[in-house]
Amino acid sequence: MLFSGSGALQEVLVNAVAGAPDAAAPIDAVAAALEAAGAVLQQRRPFALKRQAVIAASTELRERELIKLASLASALADALHRRGATGPAATLTAEAGIAVFRVAFERWVTERDERDLPQLIRDSLADLKAMTAGSR
Amino acid sequence: MLFSGSGALQEVLVNAVAGAPDAAAPIDAVAAALEAAGAVLQQRRPFALKRQAVIAASTELRERELIKLASLASALADALHRRGATGPAATLTAEAGIAVFRVAFERWVTERDERDLPQLIRDSLADLKAMTAGSR
Repeated sequence: MLFSGSGALQEVLVNAVAGAPDAAAPIDAVAAALEAAGAVLQQRRPFALKRQAVIAASTELRERELIKLASLASALADALHRRGATGPAATLTAEAGIAVFRVAFERWVTERDERDLPQLIRDSLADLKAMTAGSR
Repeated sequence: MLFSGSGALQEVLVNAVAGAPDAAAPIDAVAAALEAAGAVLQQRRPFALKRQAVIAASTELRERELIKLASLASALADALHRRGATGPAATLTAEAGIAVFRVAFERWVTERDERDLPQLIRDSLADLKAMTAGSR
């Protein structure tokens, strides 16, 4: 679902986290990073759709994608640590961010929807907030 | 990190989601499921630690674990759908739940900590709530 190598996408994510305002909460730094990555993918939508179709058809490639996403989550967590976030909370924020990204990406490639990827990412993050706020 | 086959753990998760009160929010049904799975693993802590050490030492086994966790997330999402949750929100709830579980499990196997796994799961879920509530 990502770039040919996930290196470029990881760079976009990590740089965006590093460049977020000092006062930004970790989740907001991650949100900014995901939106930045989403904007890049949005500009390459035809390529992204083609790549996704190839991946969807192969169990092995789908597994590779899971591994790449886990690497991206680790890179995000490391970037949060460098901003001073503490261990488990940084990891959780990064993992939750990647979950938001995955759901948004899935909608972007499968739904007949006018929304672009950065908007879907914002919507998914809003869903996550609503979901946790609605808890007991 | 899980049972020898992840089938047994998946069954615990899916049954707990199915058995949650009708009025429970999806995130609370998932929380109950994760705590139930955590309680089972807690009873088998020495085995779980041994198994985790084997997995941590092997890139291939770590990748297998990622795939299993993705399967568990899918099974959780399906169980939420059967409770009437809608598509993307159910997927996001399941994915976020698995992120909570992963972080709690990681702490359980690595930290010198008195907390048991169900408690760590509750703490991680509280972290997720605090993290999203602290967002802009």
